[in-house]
Amino acid sequence: MHAEGHHAHRARGDEPHEVQPAAVAAEMGQVTVGVVTISDSAARGERPEDLSGQAIKDNLHRFGGTLRHYEVIPDEQEIITQTLLLLVDDVHVDVVLTTGGTGLSPRDRTPQATLPVLDYEVPGLAEAMRAESAKKTPFAYLSRAIAGVRTETLIVNLPGSPKACVEIIEVLAPLIPHAVQLLRGGVSEHKPSESTP
Amino acid sequence: MHAEGHHAHRARGDEPHEVQPAAVAAEMGQVTVGVVTISDSAARGERPEDLSGQAIKDNLHRFGGTLRHYEVIPDEQEIITQTLLLLVDDVHVDVVLTTGGTGLSPRDRTPQATLPVLDYEVPGLAEAMRAESAKKTPFAYLSRAIAGVRTETLIVNLPGSPKACVEIIEVLAPLIPHAVQLLRGGVSEHKPSESTP
Amino acid sequence: MHAEGHHAHRARGDEPHEVQPAAVAAEMGQVTVGVVTISDSAARGERPEDLSGQAIKDNLHRFGGTLRHYEVIPDEQEIITQTLLLLVDDVHVDVVLTTGGTGLSPRDRTPQATLPVLDYEVPGLAEAMRAESAKKTPFAYLSRAIAGVRTETLIVNLPGSPKACVEIIEVLAPLIPHAVQLLRGGVSEHKPSESTP
Repeated sequence: MHAEGHHAHRARGDEPHEVQPAAVAAEMGQVTVGVVTISDSAARGERPEDLSGQAIKDNLHRFGGTLRHYEVIPDEQEIITQTLLLLVDDVHVDVVLTTGGTGLSPRDRTPQATLPVLDYEVPGLAEAMRAESAKKTPFAYLSRAIAGVRTETLIVNLPGSPKACVEIIEVLAPLIPHAVQLLRGGVSEHKPSESTP
Repeated sequence: MHAEGHHAHRARGDEPHEVQPAAVAAEMGQVTVGVVTISDSAARGERPEDLSGQAIKDNLHRFGGTLRHYEVIPDEQEIITQTLLLLVDDVHVDVVLTTGGTGLSPRDRTPQATLPVLDYEVPGLAEAMRAESAKKTPFAYLSRAIAGVRTETLIVNLPGSPKACVEIIEVLAPLIPHAVQLLRGGVSEHKPSESTP
Repeated sequence: MHAEGHHAHRARGDEPHEVQPAAVAAEMGQVTVGVVTISDSAARGERPEDLSGQAIKDNLHRFGGTLRHYEVIPDEQEIITQTLLLLVDDVHVDVVLTTGGTGLSPRDRTPQATLPVLDYEVPGLAEAMRAESAKKTPFAYLSRAIAGVRTETLIVNLPGSPKACVEIIEVLAPLIPHAVQLLRGGVSEHKPSESTP
């Protein structure tokens, strides 16, 4: 179902490559995932509970992901940074997905806390998230979410809305298994010396 | 009229959220705006006069904006930076819109002068401006315009063409009142603990 | 042929500006180009040979480009940086096109080697490359390619796939001659004081 929606808005007349995230994931074994909910109120245990974290956990199967770690923390920059470092350097997950704290309000600190953790950004993932989400609501352009790599782990900021999280996981699903393979060194980018693009 | 054009290129089958910038603005009181025209020739008072600054002023009503400050300055990096600091730290406008100096030529210095003023960038606004303008002319991809936040003020670089300024204000109109609300702390991003996305 | 495909996906009802890269290039004299293939295996002389470098050289005519320098180097950050500096500061080409090393795998170092060479980035070119390529394959969003300016030279990272290189040159063809004119100072961005946008 994802693939269909995804292809629907592609250029007319172009035949997009087939992308089967589940098949790729099966080949490569499991993709381990850490989910971090960043929310002052959720961290205080206030009701209603962490709906966006739950939405992410419920949709990991879309890219063959397995939950390895789940945490709810407040919008404190230092706590966010330390949690990301733990998940990459100690837990060694393949992918970290955060939710919350990517907006414009003064308490939103997730991008600032993520950037210093990264070895390098992968700007296209943030561009894709915004461009796809903006088809639903133009407010998506206000998201300051970033994505990038630390060592061999892909870190992606998702917004704080459960519905937007699910939509964005659909966008990322074809990309994540491929990205994890690249980071593990199992496959490499098409090289200039290869004939098949 | 904006809303129509805006929705026209959205994904088929998706129902975009209703966005009524004027209604939101009415609710929140006025959105104060500073307009800064950055142009060596306009600053020297040469004819024809500042058409893009005028175009911006004529279109503030599209997002409920009220002109608080208007200035014409040359393409001098230090002057641009000082003017932005004045508008944010002293005049305390909600939004600063600059025009000019975002291109590739050696005298274009607006993005370099804006970046050090910002607490953080809002990259999606620049992406949206380029992607929307590129539907009219591919040269829009050469714009180095940036957008971001200092304290509670949103700063956005617009290009130097009056027509492009108006087009981009149409793109930004649904976003600006919401962004100002977020920056004032009056509303917050949808939190992971909220059920309605 | 390019122009047609390019216009096909533009907004309905908008009349895009006419763009004739060849005509502009003719007016301005030749656009000199340096092509740098970045690939460990190609640098070792392994077969098959440098197909993406060849694809780029075969398509320079699309924007009126003339090959001035061509080199194949390994994925070593320091070597990449030195090669770019040579092409800009000594050979003084108008445009440098690199191919390879823009992906996620640990050996991909081209963006990291390019960034410190630039006076400023031109982020819209990277956004356009990814957005256009993603119409063919979503993996394009994983490209970390950057583009920017050093002195009067435009530097653009292309991916390592020959087919993607050709597709992206089609996207860039209408922009490159205009960018080179701007960098040479022969024309300037539309100024706020100009009436024709």
